[in-house]
Amino acid sequence: MNLCLDVQSNYARYLQVKARQGNRLSQPVIITLTTDFGLNDHFVGVMKGVLLASAPDAQIVDISHAVQPFDILDGALTISQAYSYFPSGTVHMVIVDPGVGTARRPIILTGDRHLFVAPDNGVLSLVYAREERLSVRHVTAEHYFLQPRSNTFHGRDIFSPVAAYLAKGVDPERFGEEVTDYVRFGVPRPKPVDEQTLRGVVLKVDRFGNLITNITPADVPKLFAPGPPSFKIVIGAKAEVKRICANYAEGGPGEAFGILGSMGFLEIATNRGSAFQLLGAGKGSEVSVVLGAK
Amino acid sequence: MNLCLDVQSNYARYLQVKARQGNRLSQPVIITLTTDFGLNDHFVGVMKGVLLASAPDAQIVDISHAVQPFDILDGALTISQAYSYFPSGTVHMVIVDPGVGTARRPIILTGDRHLFVAPDNGVLSLVYAREERLSVRHVTAEHYFLQPRSNTFHGRDIFSPVAAYLAKGVDPERFGEEVTDYVRFGVPRPKPVDEQTLRGVVLKVDRFGNLITNITPADVPKLFAPGPPSFKIVIGAKAEVKRICANYAEGGPGEAFGILGSMGFLEIATNRGSAFQLLGAGKGSEVSVVLGAK
Amino acid sequence: MNLCLDVQSNYARYLQVKARQGNRLSQPVIITLTTDFGLNDHFVGVMKGVLLASAPDAQIVDISHAVQPFDILDGALTISQAYSYFPSGTVHMVIVDPGVGTARRPIILTGDRHLFVAPDNGVLSLVYAREERLSVRHVTAEHYFLQPRSNTFHGRDIFSPVAAYLAKGVDPERFGEEVTDYVRFGVPRPKPVDEQTLRGVVLKVDRFGNLITNITPADVPKLFAPGPPSFKIVIGAKAEVKRICANYAEGGPGEAFGILGSMGFLEIATNRGSAFQLLGAGKGSEVSVVLGAK
Repeated sequence: MNLCLDVQSNYARYLQVKARQGNRLSQPVIITLTTDFGLNDHFVGVMKGVLLASAPDAQIVDISHAVQPFDILDGALTISQAYSYFPSGTVHMVIVDPGVGTARRPIILTGDRHLFVAPDNGVLSLVYAREERLSVRHVTAEHYFLQPRSNTFHGRDIFSPVAAYLAKGVDPERFGEEVTDYVRFGVPRPKPVDEQTLRGVVLKVDRFGNLITNITPADVPKLFAPGPPSFKIVIGAKAEVKRICANYAEGGPGEAFGILGSMGFLEIATNRGSAFQLLGAGKGSEVSVVLGAK
Repeated sequence: MNLCLDVQSNYARYLQVKARQGNRLSQPVIITLTTDFGLNDHFVGVMKGVLLASAPDAQIVDISHAVQPFDILDGALTISQAYSYFPSGTVHMVIVDPGVGTARRPIILTGDRHLFVAPDNGVLSLVYAREERLSVRHVTAEHYFLQPRSNTFHGRDIFSPVAAYLAKGVDPERFGEEVTDYVRFGVPRPKPVDEQTLRGVVLKVDRFGNLITNITPADVPKLFAPGPPSFKIVIGAKAEVKRICANYAEGGPGEAFGILGSMGFLEIATNRGSAFQLLGAGKGSEVSVVLGAK
Repeated sequence: MNLCLDVQSNYARYLQVKARQGNRLSQPVIITLTTDFGLNDHFVGVMKGVLLASAPDAQIVDISHAVQPFDILDGALTISQAYSYFPSGTVHMVIVDPGVGTARRPIILTGDRHLFVAPDNGVLSLVYAREERLSVRHVTAEHYFLQPRSNTFHGRDIFSPVAAYLAKGVDPERFGEEVTDYVRFGVPRPKPVDEQTLRGVVLKVDRFGNLITNITPADVPKLFAPGPPSFKIVIGAKAEVKRICANYAEGGPGEAFGILGSMGFLEIATNRGSAFQLLGAGKGSEVSVVLGAK
């Protein structure tokens, strides 16, 4: 496929330029980590040891290790919100891997500017959706893996050494053949219920108790336009919100309101408090925007 | 103001010396992060991406992301306990920002040896109190900000790029004009109730359940002197402590005692246990030192 | 002792080679941190400041700060699982230190490939058990310590500066005399109850709720061999497991099973769920393997 060859040669060109500039040392390649491993065990530390044993120049950055255990969609959301802010050439490890030790494939994704290493279970779905040109490879070159290899911790035994060698400049094509049947799912999208009503869902609750919905300004432009029509937003069984605020501090004490959050989604929030606690709604709760409501 | 010009030129001199020594590469500028963002979301990872995209040589260090949400005093305590241990030239980002998106100003503080980037809401109050010479600037140079800029995540869109450019050596005066009316509050100080009694408060509870009070040896020197007079310390409604220990292990099983903690404050602690759980007292609880008590 | 002189000179040789190669700058020495300090306070950030103030080239890696408070065995398990994955020359700080401020000694352990800095309370016991050649020194060279020195935070005042100077290449023998009476304990080992039965214990519960036992394949080889005999594993008061799975995903919904985990121990697990919650067993629960059971 021409498209993918292009991608490969693009990335190869990037590495060549980088090498020519001799800035490999002063600007080490970044490896980011997004996992559901938590920080209470040795897991993350061990992976960093493996990474640095093979790629001592790499700069390791945690995106989050608090992806909900086994929750591939939560992992997909997390990496999709973060990766584009990193410099070109960054290698992103994304490990939410309930199928560790089974036949599910380890893959490398070469995107427009970044590389990704992950299990092939859909955790990169939202990256696929955002990258224009991409190539996915099934990692089969076992000589890069740690030996002996466990069936329960491929983050240590497979993904870390592969990420380390990528960070050192080993070409993705040396790790395995390209595949096109990689696992991919869509984020649940909001759906129109009738002419006035759009029904979405709470995708996650953030640290502050803000309810992050899957509704974007593109889904309901009037809601975020100046002088919106009368509307209500119904959250879960009975909570209602009738105002969009421009920032959190605009909200009155104990008032829940809508706001365009930094993730690009409609959030339900409250000023200096937790909408999660205030409204008793959370991940998976239905959120309906009703235009023209009184 | 001469004072502030001095500060500026001091820091400028520091940078010049550093540049002349050519040690910019081998000793990258450190950027520390102190926020209430937690580690459960992508927020911190995203900021690190933005920092490294502009300042790839920077070394990023987390001080804590577990400042109590929206709690400016807690953020002020955290940074004040940590910053002075870092090398000269470190850039400290301190983001506890309930007013994000409002008119509250982003500021740069140039202190004796360090730089700080924060919202102007008082979160640097305890730094102001400790630095001899300081200059505060209102950051208005929007061309350093990320575009588009959200109203809800200035840690990503404003503070990170500003910190990155500071770490790269851009002079603080290029970001905006100096201001003198920055927001500043005092930590609650202990108060004498009568000749024998000083009443303070628990500022925070640490990881081990130690109760950190706002009482220092300077407030009640006799308490920490060799051979202190008889005394009692009353915590909350009814808990009493009658001993100052030199270290945690001196305490008997299930005994609560006072101790001079590493933050420089009187702490109420228990050996291999949590005074928080033992005494049922916590943040905000009153603590009275009564000298001459039996 | 010849043995220990050998160890010292080995490590010295390693440093000499490293220095000769001139790769000190491009491959900075790594300092890892394993503590029970948590991430909610400024403690870890402060230690990193102290480390970088003395060793600006060091690369600091967190192994975990979630060791159970005061739990020396938990700390010993954590470091023993992680350290060997790090490159030669890494300096590991291990601070679980309920005796801080007492006469317990700060020590440096020089092992086969790594250095360790810790209180002498047994927290390195599992490292002693794994290293072939080792030398332990009592750190007495107070001029390396921070001044003034607290009685409550030696992680900041003693262990961090010592680790920093070790990372800079200061020879371990400059910190104090060798000792041989360092504190050392064994991990609780499983015991045979009768010819069919081996009784062990749950050492810890990991992030996913897996119960990590102290039983290894060497203790009961038949259990992990192909075609194992009939068996049951009894956990706590009444939970039973009758299957060993090769990976987590092999387990049926709501089924608890045994698995050889990445730590090298028998784990009790469940697919996409928490065995801890499913079985109501946890740290300290008894685990008996009964061979020939029906």
